[in-house]
Amino acid sequence: MRVKLVLEYDGTEYCGWQIQPNGVTVQQRVQEAVFALTGEAVSVIASGRTDSGVHAAGQTAHFDTVSSIPPERFAAALNSVLPADIRALSSGAAPEGFHARFCAKKKTYCYKMYVSETIRPLWNRYAYRIPFSPDITAMKRAARLFEGEHDFRAFMASGSEVKDTVRTVYSSEITCEGDFIFFTVCGNGFLYNMVRIMAGTLLEAGAGEMTEADIIAALEKGERTLCGKTLPPHGLTLLSVEYDV
Amino acid sequence: MRVKLVLEYDGTEYCGWQIQPNGVTVQQRVQEAVFALTGEAVSVIASGRTDSGVHAAGQTAHFDTVSSIPPERFAAALNSVLPADIRALSSGAAPEGFHARFCAKKKTYCYKMYVSETIRPLWNRYAYRIPFSPDITAMKRAARLFEGEHDFRAFMASGSEVKDTVRTVYSSEITCEGDFIFFTVCGNGFLYNMVRIMAGTLLEAGAGEMTEADIIAALEKGERTLCGKTLPPHGLTLLSVEYDV
Repeated sequence: MRVKLVLEYDGTEYCGWQIQPNGVTVQQRVQEAVFALTGEAVSVIASGRTDSGVHAAGQTAHFDTVSSIPPERFAAALNSVLPADIRALSSGAAPEGFHARFCAKKKTYCYKMYVSETIRPLWNRYAYRIPFSPDITAMKRAARLFEGEHDFRAFMASGSEVKDTVRTVYSSEITCEGDFIFFTVCGNGFLYNMVRIMAGTLLEAGAGEMTEADIIAALEKGERTLCGKTLPPHGLTLLSVEYDV
Repeated sequence: MRVKLVLEYDGTEYCGWQIQPNGVTVQQRVQEAVFALTGEAVSVIASGRTDSGVHAAGQTAHFDTVSSIPPERFAAALNSVLPADIRALSSGAAPEGFHARFCAKKKTYCYKMYVSETIRPLWNRYAYRIPFSPDITAMKRAARLFEGEHDFRAFMASGSEVKDTVRTVYSSEITCEGDFIFFTVCGNGFLYNMVRIMAGTLLEAGAGEMTEADIIAALEKGERTLCGKTLPPHGLTLLSVEYDV
């Protein structure tokens, strides 16, 4: 039986999703929890990796089990053994042919920023501080440039070995609430560090350091050096993953 | 020279404000920061203690110094040596006769709750989970009962040695946003654990376990056992302290 899980986690204390030799990861903790319940050493496959320090409100994953625990009960059972910064929000029998990574059709991320001269201890865990007031109108307009099908090669961390760098962005939007600025982006997939580089690019647009023409040129020329900085991971949250199946 | 500070802190990792033998406190960290800057072993006096795990967005404090650092520069200077979960939001020369504790006229606290079957890792650091949907109308009406001058003896942790238990509550309000419920209360002072017991009492009103008459009786009879439970500290934030001077 294949079980589908929707997970929320605070990524602060983790070296990202994927198991690695040096440091504790979310995948490791979830697999340990499955083992504690079933005695099975399963692979829990997520829709994609999240980087070290990145959060998730709706990461989606699956694993295969022969356990007699009913699939819809797995969430509560896992939560009884998971650390409090990782929770299964729901679980159920995966639809026929479901694969958390290969069947993912849309992912939505949010990069949160806040405007403040100083670090705000109550905001800083899930949002990135900007020490100046950016031009929100410029950021809103720039965000729209990402919508559509583009070669996002320029918006990929150097060193990535991905060959096909064309992705479709369904929506890319800046919204504000008080001192917070939210960059919410939905697409059919994202390259390594792509959302954090997009956010850094929008921030430069908001600072008057990049024009819309500069962003269009970065998309067309595909050079990483033409984009903004990669913003730090703690401002980023994977909101949701959508599937057809 | 007396310096007035406004502080924000994430109380999660601290044994409250006040220095104590076992465990690190916010006061200790702020005093260490002043020492690092000035070489002076000062006492930093706050408007009042916050308990272990309680947060502050506007704790106010003062200390006396002979340092040549301009008072309005102390915030930035302290922030350069404080841990990231404590920040001075502002600093300045204290007005004549100012004392952070004795001159405090109004304090505003917020107790945050959220409705969810499971812990939400991205919400749980600053809010308390309620596993059921309470009756918000009942909570709103019950909250109003605290307004005015009352003997809040029943809403004080047992063991407290405070004699005068009469306090004035200027406003006491329940508001909602999505799955969040906020209890915001402003008064001229609060007894030990008073806001957390008030929040626990409102929650029992929302669960249908206490009536308005029960709350009025608790206020009149002054017995701790007539109120709700003391809710945990992590949902509580000291929002602001107001002064006349």
